[in-house]
Amino acid sequence: MSVTAARGFQAAGVAAGIKASGRRDLALVRNVGPSRVAAGVFTSNRFKAAPVVWSIDALAGGELDAVVLNSGGANACTGADGLADARDTATVTASVLDSSPDRIAVCSTGLIGVRLPMDAVVSGVKAAAAELSEAGATAAAEAIMTTDTVSKQAAAASEAGWSVGGMAKGAGMLAPALATMLVVLTTDADLTAEQADAALRAATRVTFDRTDSDGCMSTNDTVILLASGASGVAPDAEEFTAALTHVCASLARQLLADAEGASHDIAVTVVNAATEDDALDVARAVTRSNLFKTAIFGNDPNWGRVLASAGTSRATFDPEQVSVSFNGVKVFDRGGLGEDRSLVDLTPREVVVEIDLAAGPEQATVWTNDLTYDYVKENAEYSS
Amino acid sequence: MSVTAARGFQAAGVAAGIKASGRRDLALVRNVGPSRVAAGVFTSNRFKAAPVVWSIDALAGGELDAVVLNSGGANACTGADGLADARDTATVTASVLDSSPDRIAVCSTGLIGVRLPMDAVVSGVKAAAAELSEAGATAAAEAIMTTDTVSKQAAAASEAGWSVGGMAKGAGMLAPALATMLVVLTTDADLTAEQADAALRAATRVTFDRTDSDGCMSTNDTVILLASGASGVAPDAEEFTAALTHVCASLARQLLADAEGASHDIAVTVVNAATEDDALDVARAVTRSNLFKTAIFGNDPNWGRVLASAGTSRATFDPEQVSVSFNGVKVFDRGGLGEDRSLVDLTPREVVVEIDLAAGPEQATVWTNDLTYDYVKENAEYSS
Repeated sequence: MSVTAARGFQAAGVAAGIKASGRRDLALVRNVGPSRVAAGVFTSNRFKAAPVVWSIDALAGGELDAVVLNSGGANACTGADGLADARDTATVTASVLDSSPDRIAVCSTGLIGVRLPMDAVVSGVKAAAAELSEAGATAAAEAIMTTDTVSKQAAAASEAGWSVGGMAKGAGMLAPALATMLVVLTTDADLTAEQADAALRAATRVTFDRTDSDGCMSTNDTVILLASGASGVAPDAEEFTAALTHVCASLARQLLADAEGASHDIAVTVVNAATEDDALDVARAVTRSNLFKTAIFGNDPNWGRVLASAGTSRATFDPEQVSVSFNGVKVFDRGGLGEDRSLVDLTPREVVVEIDLAAGPEQATVWTNDLTYDYVKENAEYSS
Repeated sequence: MSVTAARGFQAAGVAAGIKASGRRDLALVRNVGPSRVAAGVFTSNRFKAAPVVWSIDALAGGELDAVVLNSGGANACTGADGLADARDTATVTASVLDSSPDRIAVCSTGLIGVRLPMDAVVSGVKAAAAELSEAGATAAAEAIMTTDTVSKQAAAASEAGWSVGGMAKGAGMLAPALATMLVVLTTDADLTAEQADAALRAATRVTFDRTDSDGCMSTNDTVILLASGASGVAPDAEEFTAALTHVCASLARQLLADAEGASHDIAVTVVNAATEDDALDVARAVTRSNLFKTAIFGNDPNWGRVLASAGTSRATFDPEQVSVSFNGVKVFDRGGLGEDRSLVDLTPREVVVEIDLAAGPEQATVWTNDLTYDYVKENAEYSS
């Protein structure tokens, strides 16, 4: 279901010949309305890939008819030629969908610095358009996979009569990340462009933006929300944001669970911070520590590495009042030794590290994974 | 020679029984004058180890009679008890050297969160004091090793009649780093406390501060300069700073060359930046990218990962004007594809990555190493 869980959407995924493997590599998601409201968030990397530059412009009007996505090539750092390729992709998509290019978003993922095989892209767009249907969501989700081992899909429904669906790709290397996180979210709720934008920013801020696999930021990351209005229901803003956040959180968890080489999923939760920004600052410092992440790989509840990372933060706290727990065992208690580290069991895949700053009422969680031999192997051998 | 290359110094290194291995683990460096000027720089981590807290206080007066260093235990995150241990270490050292505790700096390296075996420390200090001599420099350098495979020593001499020597420990994990970088520098130049402090800050700013093995900052990092004045020569400030920088650079290179699991030494040089800070900002972003560092491990001149890292920086530059070279081959040329990446040979251990921002006259280099299986292995298995 995923992107077609909400009414008013069709999807397709085909093998266009962009990937050497012959697997599906081109996806279309079309909004058949009645509304075509859209919103997007993009990588903040200054080396933005051509499709990101294109899609930011396309979204300026607050409406989209479709999103066309390819794997097998990122079309990043490809200069003016690459931008022409992104425009041509939108143009052919608009042509077969009876739309206009500036109502088509383009997403690409794969190798940086390589031009797309445009003949394959053009024929793939035509083939995908011919297959568009409500049944095409899984094929679309598969067509955007690169080193992903499984497709990522999620959906949620409101008792008020509207739904939210989504698909994502990304296999670790998220910050959001260099191997590119692409996400398409759909809803049949009736939204204004402003409502869609506000809900999308609120949902991504606490989900994808707090998922940090390896601290590396992609040139291509894109999250797009399409709203068809097909339910005829204008949702309660708070309920809609909650549902959208739920779908984003599910997709973000699926991305981390499939992270390259990871053997542990780690939630770093900072509690009792003076501000939410302080909590985030400490959590990000810990989740970016290679020493912390290799310790978790070694099933070692190494609170010293947690403290050493937290100590690089500028957040308000008194080092003498900080406590650290691993999976509920408080191994460092208000500046001194706590329970014995041998009580901590880190063999399960899920690890929860809680850092209590004893400095206020706020909290935040950042999700990451461990640093393993397989992460090094995949990223030493895969040229992205 | 190292710390006794300059006149007016004695050193010793003994096996005090702090390390389970029975290797040397306690070092003394004594300044016999006539001057006892000293300066220090320390980790900026907010979780400062007890010896760091102690030594910062000891250096407030701008003079030290000796530095006592141990491996086998970091005495970090050990609370008030740990601070008492650092004070007791300084007290026993002062007692046997006929000094006072507030003129003794203390440095520790090893596991975080474990109390030092003070009986062993006390007897070790007494044994080391009995062995103090100009011939003890290498034993002292060996006594501060942890996962280091070789001791690190360096020296330089001026035609004006003064010398600079130094020893260091640290095996990767430098930013300066969690496994702790300890450095003792000595000179027989005649310096005021202000001159010593200014020269030390200038030298460490462009050497140890620009050596970033894995982005992790230690709780114990310490660099101390002792000046005996035994040459009777007040040096030219510029020449002295240059010589001190030379010794620091040599020690920093030795630290990186011995970095845990590394197979490449990498210099990331950013040229034509608007400001030195801009150049540093970009260089640090690249040297902290796990994807870049795994690519170098795989002998892959992956300029896409260099750009993606540079793109997270706030430095002034136009992405369309940036160029990137690997070992002299310009693979990305002013925003577009450059020479073929197959021309780059990354099999030598030394790798130079140059990023041309085309934005001004400034430049900076940061040194790092690659991210390897062995890094993960050592840090997953070693509890620091």
